[in-house]
Amino acid sequence: MANFNFKNLILINPCELDDECYARAMHASKILDDAKIFSSFKKAINNLDYIVATSSIESQNDKRHLRNALKVEDFTKKIFELDGKIGLVFGREDYGLFNDEIAACDMILKIPTSESYLSMNLSHAVSIVLYSLFVKRDFSPKEKIKIGKIEKEKLYETFSKLLDSINYPNHKREKTEIMFKRMMGRSMPSKWEYHTFMGVLSKSLDKIKKNK
Amino acid sequence: MANFNFKNLILINPCELDDECYARAMHASKILDDAKIFSSFKKAINNLDYIVATSSIESQNDKRHLRNALKVEDFTKKIFELDGKIGLVFGREDYGLFNDEIAACDMILKIPTSESYLSMNLSHAVSIVLYSLFVKRDFSPKEKIKIGKIEKEKLYETFSKLLDSINYPNHKREKTEIMFKRMMGRSMPSKWEYHTFMGVLSKSLDKIKKNK
Repeated sequence: MANFNFKNLILINPCELDDECYARAMHASKILDDAKIFSSFKKAINNLDYIVATSSIESQNDKRHLRNALKVEDFTKKIFELDGKIGLVFGREDYGLFNDEIAACDMILKIPTSESYLSMNLSHAVSIVLYSLFVKRDFSPKEKIKIGKIEKEKLYETFSKLLDSINYPNHKREKTEIMFKRMMGRSMPSKWEYHTFMGVLSKSLDKIKKNK
Repeated sequence: MANFNFKNLILINPCELDDECYARAMHASKILDDAKIFSSFKKAINNLDYIVATSSIESQNDKRHLRNALKVEDFTKKIFELDGKIGLVFGREDYGLFNDEIAACDMILKIPTSESYLSMNLSHAVSIVLYSLFVKRDFSPKEKIKIGKIEKEKLYETFSKLLDSINYPNHKREKTEIMFKRMMGRSMPSKWEYHTFMGVLSKSLDKIKKNK
């Protein structure tokens, strides 16, 4: 993190930050001192606008939307246009992220690895993602044209209402909501696209309600 | 290495490859089994065509050619055109590479890092360089248009002869030879450029000799 100018470390139910931990941090102990500690994943992501999960396992099947991923290279091209706080989520060294954690994220980031050895060491995964962001970072003042947390949640909510209105089967519902989240996460709509799309969804909802 | 399809590990005077070492390698023990071990840096690089040093310290002063570096991103764009075996050299965790080791390399690769924390953990440096090569790799059959070891050494030799011919001061000589190596390392001349440039150097040498 210190190598690539990242400062805000969030830890969820970590082990004790003992002497070994500080010894390994070398000259970056300030990051450990300033680390925010949360007891649950839900609390940790509460103040963030975009949550990005990292995973080495990519969905082979397009219908398994849970792990439908963006590659690091594509991610770093788009990310600097986002408005708001972005959280990068790295899983446990042994188990990675659980499905419910991944489902709570707006998008999934995949580090391309060899077909014959997919799973990466946690600290290597972190260093590659932070390095990729560091070299592509763009601090030129530019208009934040992408939507933030509020618009994003309104979009998801409206989509859910649309599912209600068409009596969408319950057993398919969660999967489809996650699929929509992933699609929007990857497409990172601009404010104009958001308003246009929301217009379409809202109009559709109105029409369906009237016909009932 | 296994994550990014690299197979050939060379170790120079390593510590014992004990149980801990194999435990950390996880499912990549084959790379350790197949590692070639050498007693000196010179022997290790003997069969390689291009030797690439990695360093986190970049020359601030353009005249200190010893550490005049290429960035990883520029390196990965050019490297697949090179003809021959390429060795990536990573230094010791604590001291990095010594100056005589760096001087023996054809080019230096720099991983951009924060001004406030330049020095990287060895395994993070390795993972970033190998990842960068993995995602930019290009296996499309293409003409290897860049020069190999033999041409490269002929070029260095001719440049040395030129220095002789102009009675170049001894105390500046080594620095200037390294500068030339670095310039050629970064420029990665094509065969055509090599022949053209060699033509110029040889003609110059002839002229100087005749006038003596």
